[in-house]
Amino acid sequence: MFSCSGYAATAADASLKPFFFERRDTGPEDVRIDILYCGVCHSDLHQARNEWRNTVYPCVPGHEIVGRVAGVGSSVTRFGKGDLVGVGCLVDSCRDCASCKGGLEQYCEVGFVGTYNGEDRHGRGITFGGYSQAVVVDQGFVLKVPETLDPAAAAPLLCAGITTWSPLRHWKVGPGQRVGVVGLGGLGHMGVKFARALGAEVVLFTTSPGKIADGIRLGAHEVVLSKDPDAMAKERGRFDFILDAVAANHDINAYLDLLKLDGTLVQVGAPEDPLPVSVFSLLMKRRNFAGSIIGGIPETQEMLDFCGEHGITADIEMIRMEEIEGAYERMLRSDVKYRFVIDMASMPAAA
Amino acid sequence: MFSCSGYAATAADASLKPFFFERRDTGPEDVRIDILYCGVCHSDLHQARNEWRNTVYPCVPGHEIVGRVAGVGSSVTRFGKGDLVGVGCLVDSCRDCASCKGGLEQYCEVGFVGTYNGEDRHGRGITFGGYSQAVVVDQGFVLKVPETLDPAAAAPLLCAGITTWSPLRHWKVGPGQRVGVVGLGGLGHMGVKFARALGAEVVLFTTSPGKIADGIRLGAHEVVLSKDPDAMAKERGRFDFILDAVAANHDINAYLDLLKLDGTLVQVGAPEDPLPVSVFSLLMKRRNFAGSIIGGIPETQEMLDFCGEHGITADIEMIRMEEIEGAYERMLRSDVKYRFVIDMASMPAAA
Repeated sequence: MFSCSGYAATAADASLKPFFFERRDTGPEDVRIDILYCGVCHSDLHQARNEWRNTVYPCVPGHEIVGRVAGVGSSVTRFGKGDLVGVGCLVDSCRDCASCKGGLEQYCEVGFVGTYNGEDRHGRGITFGGYSQAVVVDQGFVLKVPETLDPAAAAPLLCAGITTWSPLRHWKVGPGQRVGVVGLGGLGHMGVKFARALGAEVVLFTTSPGKIADGIRLGAHEVVLSKDPDAMAKERGRFDFILDAVAANHDINAYLDLLKLDGTLVQVGAPEDPLPVSVFSLLMKRRNFAGSIIGGIPETQEMLDFCGEHGITADIEMIRMEEIEGAYERMLRSDVKYRFVIDMASMPAAA
Repeated sequence: MFSCSGYAATAADASLKPFFFERRDTGPEDVRIDILYCGVCHSDLHQARNEWRNTVYPCVPGHEIVGRVAGVGSSVTRFGKGDLVGVGCLVDSCRDCASCKGGLEQYCEVGFVGTYNGEDRHGRGITFGGYSQAVVVDQGFVLKVPETLDPAAAAPLLCAGITTWSPLRHWKVGPGQRVGVVGLGGLGHMGVKFARALGAEVVLFTTSPGKIADGIRLGAHEVVLSKDPDAMAKERGRFDFILDAVAANHDINAYLDLLKLDGTLVQVGAPEDPLPVSVFSLLMKRRNFAGSIIGGIPETQEMLDFCGEHGITADIEMIRMEEIEGAYERMLRSDVKYRFVIDMASMPAAA
């Protein structure tokens, strides 16, 4: 065991504060990582504040981790000290079900082990995440991060990146397709970058006139203001695929109507309430409404490699660890372009 | 032009009554059909009573037509006098869009011409359907009905049959798959027969204990009472595909939860109100919620040929034309096993 400093919530209504705890020693299959940067995902806030009513305190959030290998176990051959690596939302899974064997650990039939607030499969309690100096992770859940990428801006690829990459690849988005991305936030801005890089004609839908220029800069061919009924009417039946990154309740039928015959709308945000779906809209063009969550380990590596080749990272704002609560408040106002990343050099040293 | 007798509604609140009208002469591309039988679809009732608020009166319903060829136009080579033929929900479409060229006329981008209450593309007004002695249809929308089938029991294949066949084929239902059919009515009972004949393991979901034995007789391997929470809980995550034939509002999430990873639930009934969909359920197993409407001409012929090979028809109750209003009332109470078919020999002669 070794001492590690982090930031934790101790109750739903408590601010995150310095927290000192122990990490396990590096086992034969383990990779010990000194964390350089950790992205700030909306899930971190939900979990810290117990908004999903399942938080175990103290809670150390963070699942967009980039760091350097500090040591490896005796069975680890793919990683060596000093390698730039990443850890995303998963640190373990059953490894035995059809999903795990198919490289879709996010759909593990037993349930994957989250990077934080997850139940460790080896009886070591609840997992602590990336708002910390270091982490020890089984080699099967460690990703290689291309050295050519800015490591801070690469951190959000581990959740926001893979969450949008996975459905774009699963539904085979590519050249010749007209693809919509709904919402320009942490997920949406990665969706725009990836859909463009994959060769699609990309249309961003946003409620904010202030995001039009940014949408184009990030790679959209067109930006449609979703509050403009005429603009929306012009897009009816024109889309092969729509990636909907809006986590708030919204009118999904306005977007389903934009799909062509056999088109698919995939929700990657999870609105709290059920969304009313017009079955008539689905029937008339054999449309599909689907959901997708994060991504598996092999496709996460594929995404990171693709990012390395194409020079793709997130647009970020760097913060110090002690600025986390202010960052959460700005996130709640959608006042971030487009992801906060914590510089772990700002973490207080372990006691 | 020739005189034809039929049954028509003259207003939303009027009973169907004898109606005498003229059909066009047989043009070069036309097939004139003496109608033997016409199935009674729930859409007939919706249209006759203007429940979709678009009915043009007088309205002659009926789009599950089986009859014999009485004559063909000069360009018609595939059909000859005396052939057993069928006409379904479509009598024309633009024939030029990608959907039409792909044999998916039901998704014609211009809009297909319905067999009744449709706007004739050649300026002859509103189409009159199969509650009549005869019909003249372009050869491109006439189907061959295998002589080995009971022609009365084959009539419902033209709508109830193809509406369930098309999604089962599009989503590639077959051996090794566990397939659910929700609701045992005109559509559902065909869904059970087809899914079984296609080699799937078939589970019928019904609210009626009285339909368990019939479900098994029709081909289901198991019947689950959907009002039994324990029985439903046992089925969670077990289905590759679910065909939902319920047109009334119902809890769709109870069925979405039964799908495996990447499973699809297809709605073929069209509930009037939007259905609240739990996005979380879609996300957690990358589930798909889709819709499908009737089927195209090539797949309708494929279905009829399959029925000929496998001896599949609908379970029907024969009625006389003047019994139609009583049949509608029984349909509204779901009191039919499983489709009414009108014997056109009971039609009053043309004036």
